Amino acid sequence: MTEKYLSMWKDLKLDINAHDQLLKTLGNSYRDIYLAQNNRPGGIKYFDFVMNEVHGLRIKELMDEKEQGRKIIGSFCVFVPEEIVLAANATLVGLCTGADFDVEKVERYLPRNTCSLIKSAMGFKLGRVCPYLETADMIVGENTCDGKKKAYESLDAMVDNLYVMDLPQMKSEKGRDLLKSEYMRFQKSVEELTGVKITFDSLKEAIKTVNDKRSALHRLAELRQSDPAPISGLDALLANQISFYDNPARFTESLNRICDELEIRIKENQSLKSKKIPRILISGCPMAIPNWKLPWITETSGAVIVGEESCVGERGARNLTDDSGADRDELMDAITDRYFKVDCAIFTPNKDRLNHIMEMVKTYKADGVIHYGLQFCQPYLMESIPVEKALEAQDIPCLRIETDYGMEDAGQLKTRVEAFIEQLQ
Amino acid sequence: MTEKYLSMWKDLKLDINAHDQLLKTLGNSYRDIYLAQNNRPGGIKYFDFVMNEVHGLRIKELMDEKEQGRKIIGSFCVFVPEEIVLAANATLVGLCTGADFDVEKVERYLPRNTCSLIKSAMGFKLGRVCPYLETADMIVGENTCDGKKKAYESLDAMVDNLYVMDLPQMKSEKGRDLLKSEYMRFQKSVEELTGVKITFDSLKEAIKTVNDKRSALHRLAELRQSDPAPISGLDALLANQISFYDNPARFTESLNRICDELEIRIKENQSLKSKKIPRILISGCPMAIPNWKLPWITETSGAVIVGEESCVGERGARNLTDDSGADRDELMDAITDRYFKVDCAIFTPNKDRLNHIMEMVKTYKADGVIHYGLQFCQPYLMESIPVEKALEAQDIPCLRIETDYGMEDAGQLKTRVEAFIEQLQ
Repeated sequence: MTEKYLSMWKDLKLDINAHDQLLKTLGNSYRDIYLAQNNRPGGIKYFDFVMNEVHGLRIKELMDEKEQGRKIIGSFCVFVPEEIVLAANATLVGLCTGADFDVEKVERYLPRNTCSLIKSAMGFKLGRVCPYLETADMIVGENTCDGKKKAYESLDAMVDNLYVMDLPQMKSEKGRDLLKSEYMRFQKSVEELTGVKITFDSLKEAIKTVNDKRSALHRLAELRQSDPAPISGLDALLANQISFYDNPARFTESLNRICDELEIRIKENQSLKSKKIPRILISGCPMAIPNWKLPWITETSGAVIVGEESCVGERGARNLTDDSGADRDELMDAITDRYFKVDCAIFTPNKDRLNHIMEMVKTYKADGVIHYGLQFCQPYLMESIPVEKALEAQDIPCLRIETDYGMEDAGQLKTRVEAFIEQLQ
Repeated sequence: MTEKYLSMWKDLKLDINAHDQLLKTLGNSYRDIYLAQNNRPGGIKYFDFVMNEVHGLRIKELMDEKEQGRKIIGSFCVFVPEEIVLAANATLVGLCTGADFDVEKVERYLPRNTCSLIKSAMGFKLGRVCPYLETADMIVGENTCDGKKKAYESLDAMVDNLYVMDLPQMKSEKGRDLLKSEYMRFQKSVEELTGVKITFDSLKEAIKTVNDKRSALHRLAELRQSDPAPISGLDALLANQISFYDNPARFTESLNRICDELEIRIKENQSLKSKKIPRILISGCPMAIPNWKLPWITETSGAVIVGEESCVGERGARNLTDDSGADRDELMDAITDRYFKVDCAIFTPNKDRLNHIMEMVKTYKADGVIHYGLQFCQPYLMESIPVEKALEAQDIPCLRIETDYGMEDAGQLKTRVEAFIEQLQ
């Protein structure tokens, strides 16, 4: 692949050697973690292809879109509405994070005690190894956690197109007002960037496209309620991860094809595992590509993951946007209402998240919950304690994991996860 | 003191043994750090008295006020307007933090990686050793940093009178709207608590009381511009710390008396130190009683602290509230405007703080800046890096300290601070 896209990566001013190394590591991880799995659905080959081309063909497509005047908008958060971006004839992509990169350089800008996700995002920039970031005509930051909020102040000096979206901290009337007005401001900025006026029709169509994508993810989630689970948690996570990068319509079609296959599999009871194995719900911090450490450890320790209560998972994808509004403003209201339901730990109080975890345990017939907290991610680490208490009060076993993107603790984590799974059997 | 107030502390359900131990430690620290200083102004004896009676006579006064139907409101943050509390005929007090307490118990509710200030506040509650907290009829939390925001969710279950104030994250029009509406909501809640309607006259008078207090602190700050400095940084910090606990009018009078004395001292050039010593500006996290570690290390290493860019210092006290409004709503606007200027690191962007640090370096003729960051305090630790870069670009030496409330690192800190002061000479 390197030869084929070399001139494109050079045009994007990537650090070619570092980027080659990154792709090699990514490829090896994918081979060892994903391709090593048994009994994957046939349609998953599409995801294998996407992953193989994630810095290649997909970037080429984005470059071609740019060639034709389409703008690329990059984001780090599920609060950035893809509906608005698509309605202005632009493309939304997730930006790179999920792996440690250039940590020493990063720590000149961010404290050592910053979570891996934030350090990683800045490492990809400083190391010039994220073609999505370098392709983007606008990078959207958001005031979610303290770490990201303050990190964008440093990132601002490294890119020339950072847009910061303010977010509420409470689900109050004022909080909803702020979100709506921030979405109105974002809509205007996207219109200015693209030169495309967002109309009722274009917004309605964009809502449909995004709803279709989310519906496919919901369909996948529903199929995982079956016991035995028809697909691994690793592959389901991959679907959620790829949903941030791929062309939405193509993604939807591909995922629905996989779901068709899984439906048949369930009917024929050709399950992933033939014997009963513990079903795990993962809850907590988002896992971006290639952060597969915990699911990999979990699923190679005799359990199957049946749901992700995560931004890269059901927290991010669960609700559809009502498209019945009579005018553009009503559609903007519907978008606001949809995103205002996201139960991110930045909100206080955040009882909805706990209720959702409980609900997911029941719906997906989980035998236990592994709470995944990134070290130094205050909002999720702080919520993990009441979450654990509440689960245990209902006799639902819970294992609280605090880790980073490094592999140094993999052995220790495996021991803990194995012991936890053992107790569920 | 123990005998005298024993029944009061028992009534407040304090853990008497633990509280005795706390007072003993506090007394020893005060003796070793404060009373060991030379050449203190005579008027500082009032502060010695206040400190000696901080859990005794002052609590007795609050209990007497309660006896007469006055309500006590406790807070952890300079965003809670004392003007509104006083106008409703209530008393605002700072709540205990500044020392580690019951850490093991605290870590059942909060992650280990939580800053000392937040852990301390919860430790004082769990250990039942903060008479202010136990006296308070209402405890006001606020959505500042992630750590505090989420910690209040746990604290809520431990107290029956927690009120949470939402705060903006940006100095935008919407941000100012939120602050105003939160102050209006707070005013209403305080009125409900006290049964006292806040009037134009009572609010105007309360603004005057608080302005007088802040003016006295400004006067003290101005006197410290003199070279040599007429008072130690430790004693100036103490004035700021006590301003959160003492009766405001009495505090103002006492501090002004000290300032009268310092004015004479400056005129007569009876300075604290006769020879020229490096002048330090401390910038960063607030220092609550008895968190005197860094100033103590600094001032016993051959330097004098001439200013605190801190919530317990100039960031918290610097601006007065305009009292020229024609009606109650105009006064509420003036209060909003005054507090909206506080350049806390929770805001993004927060250029005002950097400008203020630069201005303070000039005004107080500081030779260097020590940035004080509490470990795991993301907002201030994250700002400390650009602050250091900006200072160094102006050839202002800066030392970034990251520490906690423990004394384990005191030796190492002293070595670093001494080396820093050495380079300023």
